[in-house]
Amino acid sequence: MENKKKNAFYAQSGGVTSVINASAAGVIDSARKHKKYINKLYAGQNGILGALNQDLIDTSFESKSDIKNLKYTPGGIFGSCRYKLQDYKENEADYEKLLKVFKAHNIGYFFYNGGGDSQDTTNKISEYCVKKGFDIKCIGIPKTVDNDLPLTDCSPGFGSVAKYTAISTLEAGLDVKSMCATSTKVFILEVMGRHAGWIAASSALASESRQHPPHIILFPEIVFNEKLFLKNVKNIVAKFGYCVVVTSEGVKNKQGKFLSESGIKDAFGHAQLGGVSPYLSDLIKAKNGYKCHWAVADYLQRSARHIASKTDVEQAYALGSYAVDLAVSGKNAVMTSIKRTLNKPYKWKLSTVPLHKVANVEKKMPKNYISADGYHITSACRKYMAPLINGEDCPKYKNGIPLYTSFKNKKVKKIKL
Amino acid sequence: MENKKKNAFYAQSGGVTSVINASAAGVIDSARKHKKYINKLYAGQNGILGALNQDLIDTSFESKSDIKNLKYTPGGIFGSCRYKLQDYKENEADYEKLLKVFKAHNIGYFFYNGGGDSQDTTNKISEYCVKKGFDIKCIGIPKTVDNDLPLTDCSPGFGSVAKYTAISTLEAGLDVKSMCATSTKVFILEVMGRHAGWIAASSALASESRQHPPHIILFPEIVFNEKLFLKNVKNIVAKFGYCVVVTSEGVKNKQGKFLSESGIKDAFGHAQLGGVSPYLSDLIKAKNGYKCHWAVADYLQRSARHIASKTDVEQAYALGSYAVDLAVSGKNAVMTSIKRTLNKPYKWKLSTVPLHKVANVEKKMPKNYISADGYHITSACRKYMAPLINGEDCPKYKNGIPLYTSFKNKKVKKIKL
Repeated sequence: MENKKKNAFYAQSGGVTSVINASAAGVIDSARKHKKYINKLYAGQNGILGALNQDLIDTSFESKSDIKNLKYTPGGIFGSCRYKLQDYKENEADYEKLLKVFKAHNIGYFFYNGGGDSQDTTNKISEYCVKKGFDIKCIGIPKTVDNDLPLTDCSPGFGSVAKYTAISTLEAGLDVKSMCATSTKVFILEVMGRHAGWIAASSALASESRQHPPHIILFPEIVFNEKLFLKNVKNIVAKFGYCVVVTSEGVKNKQGKFLSESGIKDAFGHAQLGGVSPYLSDLIKAKNGYKCHWAVADYLQRSARHIASKTDVEQAYALGSYAVDLAVSGKNAVMTSIKRTLNKPYKWKLSTVPLHKVANVEKKMPKNYISADGYHITSACRKYMAPLINGEDCPKYKNGIPLYTSFKNKKVKKIKL
Repeated sequence: MENKKKNAFYAQSGGVTSVINASAAGVIDSARKHKKYINKLYAGQNGILGALNQDLIDTSFESKSDIKNLKYTPGGIFGSCRYKLQDYKENEADYEKLLKVFKAHNIGYFFYNGGGDSQDTTNKISEYCVKKGFDIKCIGIPKTVDNDLPLTDCSPGFGSVAKYTAISTLEAGLDVKSMCATSTKVFILEVMGRHAGWIAASSALASESRQHPPHIILFPEIVFNEKLFLKNVKNIVAKFGYCVVVTSEGVKNKQGKFLSESGIKDAFGHAQLGGVSPYLSDLIKAKNGYKCHWAVADYLQRSARHIASKTDVEQAYALGSYAVDLAVSGKNAVMTSIKRTLNKPYKWKLSTVPLHKVANVEKKMPKNYISADGYHITSACRKYMAPLINGEDCPKYKNGIPLYTSFKNKKVKKIKL
């Protein structure tokens, strides 16, 4: 029997999440279990760039306890990147480089942990290697707070950002409710979601009724109607004394323009990008006359590991671990995925999807998840989403601060190619 | 012996915190213990307005378990207000109203839970009642996320917002560090603090070294120097690959103007108030050319009970409870306060301060708490602040959401005055 033992490569890609490192921990643990097939697990420093530039990290120097703590650490421990490989049919340069590095370091397994673009990259690399007769198993591991990957029950990272958003809306809602008699009447929370309203939708998970915050949710899927929105805010303030709005960053007007670009000029005369909540706040102040407060969660929402969803952490870890199991069993060109088998209690199992079916498909909110008036979620949405935020898996604390781990990240010696 | 049994009044004032309800729980528990002196504890609906408008809540209907859960619930359970009583020497109208309500409802104890203005209000009410020969014990209970109350080691609410800020900076710092190779280089977190930089300072508690986030802290106490700031950001990005800035909302330029008012026009042509972080982001983009992300924590920071400091919760509860003990023992016109007796391990005891010494004094950051270059904290500051964020006292969760309590808030029948 030939010696099948090869090295493996793992990298993190795109915007990080509070649980992408849990997937990394799953990959590392599983690779260590499969000693028969995998010699060393190398990680790419800053995603695929680590492979392109031969910036490889030897994970074998990391201790068991550090890997255990990695499950509790937000951010991307090896660094991530925003880098899109061109199609190899148009430009082979990057692929040639990759192949050289893979060959030089005896890489037989390739794991890429990211969103839609990263699955596309994984697919292209797999195709190219097949074409070149290079034996490598390429497996995608899903990750994105945006929850827009198709053919999986959800994307790791989403459950935790949903939990953060639901809890933040609940907590800030109690604050503005306390203050509204003499002060702030409207509070606006801006969350991520350029094209899909999944995160904004999750803000409704802390309350069963539209009488409680969030009173209004703005989705990128629904064209912003200024008149109707202002009327709604007014009615809600009249009824409850205050109004909590949760808005996706990607809300657009009927001209198809992001609201955050609708006329705000920065101090240098440029159109200001980003910041739909200050725009809405100015609008409400000018037209309805209410005192407003607004928050922009930005990176806080996707790095809030201290309040991560246990379900999400477990899925992230399992999807990483499973990817390695599949690769050593000879699977190629698939993404690991979650299949829901029961709604209540939530049950799920691991599954796979061919990479070519995932690439370049964006899962938006289904129409039946958004209420008829366009400002809230339906019970179907709630049924789908509620289990994803379930459970807590808190980090340990020392002196009041979560004990997040750091890695040695020892570099592999470069080989002259 | 005369029957000394009277009713008591408690109200919450000003911006709420994630632990002001812990003080309320302390007051309620203590009042129930002092049955010999206190008949009923009434709470003011929306702060002092509840007394002025005779909107009183009878707390005796709340169950033991709801009061226990109140300790874990952010916001102000009885509603708060921003309402400043005039000096009674200038306008007695409000005081006359209050006295009528106190007399009608046999109020012999007055507890007001708030910041500097509220302690001033408590002092004036006490003075007025003495002048009118009305026997009432007036005790202030401190509260403010701003930590600007004098003569107490700290203000309840601050420890928890400090913990939130430190953890958020740590977490978002790990995020931007992961992304900086190909994407965001600078992350800016905006926190509260109009006049004092206590909250911004607390962002440094999660790291021992200036090599880690936050790399730059902007205090209201230090005049903003654009050139120096931009140079600093550039140097830090050159050195570490990324830069995390934490800014107080109240940072001013050398003309004494808030940066958040420095030229940004909203969509309606008005100067935009609030939002120093988008301003800084635009500045860095325009002058240094870095991709920036920014977050505004706003109400999230002061309502994040899920991550409250145990030390803060304990102090908040104790200060409320102690206020009642003092009142029934005949004390008047004092604020309960915290006295630090040991630094390491942190030990504190309850104390009191005469109200007239608290009113209208704002405790800013001492000079020796800010580093020589004006962009960070000193070890003296760290020594003072670190114990305040210590310990966790997490709420219980159900279906992934903290179990925050709601009260019956049964109104007391109004008496015709």
